[in-house]
Amino acid sequence: MEFIQFKSSILWNALSKLGKSIFLPKGIFYWSDRATKEAEINGTIGVMTGYENEIIKTSEEKNVVFYIPRLRQLINKDPSLIVPYAPISGLPDLRKYWKNWIVTKCKTINNLSSKNLDISELITLPVVTHGITFGIFLATRLFAEPEEFIISPNKRWENYDSIIINQCGVKIKSFEFFVEEKNGLKFNFKGLENVIIESFNKLNKAILILNFPHNPTGYVPTIEEANNIVSMLIKIVEEYKKPLVIIFDDAYEGYVYKDNCIMGSLFYEFLSKSKYIIPIKLDGASKEMILYGGRIGFFTLGLHDAWYNKDKKQEFIDEFDNKLGGMIRSTISNCNRINQSILVEMFKANIDNIINERTKIISILKERYELINELLKQVCDNTGKISVDPNAGGFFLIVNLKIKISASQFCDHLLNKYKTGLIPFEDPNENVNGIRIAYSSINKNLIPKLVENIKLALNDF
Amino acid sequence: MEFIQFKSSILWNALSKLGKSIFLPKGIFYWSDRATKEAEINGTIGVMTGYENEIIKTSEEKNVVFYIPRLRQLINKDPSLIVPYAPISGLPDLRKYWKNWIVTKCKTINNLSSKNLDISELITLPVVTHGITFGIFLATRLFAEPEEFIISPNKRWENYDSIIINQCGVKIKSFEFFVEEKNGLKFNFKGLENVIIESFNKLNKAILILNFPHNPTGYVPTIEEANNIVSMLIKIVEEYKKPLVIIFDDAYEGYVYKDNCIMGSLFYEFLSKSKYIIPIKLDGASKEMILYGGRIGFFTLGLHDAWYNKDKKQEFIDEFDNKLGGMIRSTISNCNRINQSILVEMFKANIDNIINERTKIISILKERYELINELLKQVCDNTGKISVDPNAGGFFLIVNLKIKISASQFCDHLLNKYKTGLIPFEDPNENVNGIRIAYSSINKNLIPKLVENIKLALNDF
Repeated sequence: MEFIQFKSSILWNALSKLGKSIFLPKGIFYWSDRATKEAEINGTIGVMTGYENEIIKTSEEKNVVFYIPRLRQLINKDPSLIVPYAPISGLPDLRKYWKNWIVTKCKTINNLSSKNLDISELITLPVVTHGITFGIFLATRLFAEPEEFIISPNKRWENYDSIIINQCGVKIKSFEFFVEEKNGLKFNFKGLENVIIESFNKLNKAILILNFPHNPTGYVPTIEEANNIVSMLIKIVEEYKKPLVIIFDDAYEGYVYKDNCIMGSLFYEFLSKSKYIIPIKLDGASKEMILYGGRIGFFTLGLHDAWYNKDKKQEFIDEFDNKLGGMIRSTISNCNRINQSILVEMFKANIDNIINERTKIISILKERYELINELLKQVCDNTGKISVDPNAGGFFLIVNLKIKISASQFCDHLLNKYKTGLIPFEDPNENVNGIRIAYSSINKNLIPKLVENIKLALNDF
Repeated sequence: MEFIQFKSSILWNALSKLGKSIFLPKGIFYWSDRATKEAEINGTIGVMTGYENEIIKTSEEKNVVFYIPRLRQLINKDPSLIVPYAPISGLPDLRKYWKNWIVTKCKTINNLSSKNLDISELITLPVVTHGITFGIFLATRLFAEPEEFIISPNKRWENYDSIIINQCGVKIKSFEFFVEEKNGLKFNFKGLENVIIESFNKLNKAILILNFPHNPTGYVPTIEEANNIVSMLIKIVEEYKKPLVIIFDDAYEGYVYKDNCIMGSLFYEFLSKSKYIIPIKLDGASKEMILYGGRIGFFTLGLHDAWYNKDKKQEFIDEFDNKLGGMIRSTISNCNRINQSILVEMFKANIDNIINERTKIISILKERYELINELLKQVCDNTGKISVDPNAGGFFLIVNLKIKISASQFCDHLLNKYKTGLIPFEDPNENVNGIRIAYSSINKNLIPKLVENIKLALNDF
């Protein structure tokens, strides 16, 4: 593949060396695609196929991918939904359903100007990835060099550090996520703006990872804050005229419990707004479809017509798909089939029913969210020993310790004396010393006791 | 983790920079493990849990990981086998079963001196990987630097190049796989020996990847050849006193159709034979359990007592597990659960039945293997225009073209005129110009026609 469209776009400048060089060799796939269409005898495919009645007695003479017959008993599903390899970029049906799902979400949520917009022409067909972790790995390897950096809040999912720094050897440039204002902690616009400008001054690009609802603080921008983030970033890129890659880690999209916050991804707001902005949406079935162990995620690129000749749009998209295909083939070959099949069946069955069932589950979380925030606020107000980061969604919240004790010590004490297990969220370099509470895994009736235990433990120090 | 045992072993010298630096941060896992044991209120886990009767009417009040209720209809399985994350290193039961499977294979096959040996103390508990592709990626990243190289035959699975060269930026040093001897093509011992010595002269280690039954030639060493490979490699390392990492890509273990060839992995023969040899076994459920789309593989290290103090063996193993865990967490987080659950059920059900069913499927392949080799031999003898690489197992074989035409041209002609699809296996740099026939996907009754079409196509040139 020559990547002709790709090379003449602003995207090319933003790619890493690996991103520029990686490709999916056509080799075997080219020939087996052709053979599937043209051949009467097809000896291109590296799986065992044959007549089904060669392996089980009952069935008619049809050609299948062989499977161990007992599989039929172990799992009550057609083996063709489980056994064969899935295509490198994912099951075509699932990719279409997920694209439609993204388009639908954008239309039906309250996201600012993108609300009611039909974005189907503004995004690529999602490529299936092994969860969001692998999506972040892919985006990092495609865009960032070791000497470069990815911008992220100082408070972030701890696996960002493992993926970006430890595995990919790329740096993370942090900005303080919240600043104290007169009404309490607020999103730190100035901090974000400064690191983007710093990046543009040092490098020929900037890479930013955004995650709302945020892991682990639970922060979701209010509609006003979201508007400010969007206009600020667009203003900067138009001024510096350098590419800004924005990786949207949308793991918790839909898990929002407060009406004045944005209900869906900020990704939609950047679509086709500036040719300098390269928006990448990473979705995960893990939380969105409550299938953590399924390891199915999606990688979707937001398009801008300035990147290609209008009649070459599909070519551009194919080139991007080839890059991602090359990355997947050379690391994990392809994603597992059965969970893709399950998701296809979910979409096929009646997606509205699925969404209703999920909405009910989300409403259980919302009740916990409201209760725990209410009770924690009383502890804040009464003791002055903690603060709670702004939160409105997701699975977690962060309680900052305002007393001089390390979060690990505090959690250890809480566990030993009060049999209450929480995660210390602590990094002196990042000015972070708090406790992560996963209220996603605490029944509502236990929440008062949990907060009581925190209060008692605070009194012990 | 301090990697104390690891650092004092010969393995440490063989690691890449990444291999030396990568680790699995204890953070969240340490605290959630403790909370699971010690806490009454557990707010450490980032999934949604609650009473099952909050989400469905019928069930009793027990705590579960929430799931979308419709999942129960879509797949007739307990959601707890599908929905939760699997541990980073894999389901403990599956790891134990697979270790036992390796031990059993070694005991019951005809592999030379290792036959009947109990190797359970000589190998680590297998770590679950996303197929063999990901195992190769892991091994490459752990051991090889960009300026170094991995030794492989000139004929090899084309994805080696994508993983090792394109993705990891490491070189491949090829040796000619076969040499012409008086009885036809034979394994090229001298070629292998030379590149290992070259590696030891240039680097402080050598890394070799071996794959028997071989993709794509189908080559399996005879017992005599296997003996020679083992003694040659052990002799070299003892002379040079440098570590030799041998990655055994055992994708097709068990698929052997000729009695005088080794029936199982050559891995067993290297266990505990020399402290300089670091044997890594990569298995895949893809072919072994006929579950290609399951994306479940295994990474197992062969141990040598000279690497650690005898009473620190478990510590050493834990350190190695931590390195692999760090690699997995920072790329794909963990492998999918349902296919691990299916494999556990297979082993639990009655593994002998499963093996019998698989044996029957393998015997179907064996019949195809015998027929196609017999017919191709006639074409070789009658036309002199082709040769067939030595083959005795796996899914494929390679027909070398001895006429002056590129394999792509030949395959194109074969497809256009004779509606027969095969894969050109062609690399001028590697002196390779042949056709890969996947007889795994050609019914026996079509094989005569297939060979006839090849013969006709040869006559056209």
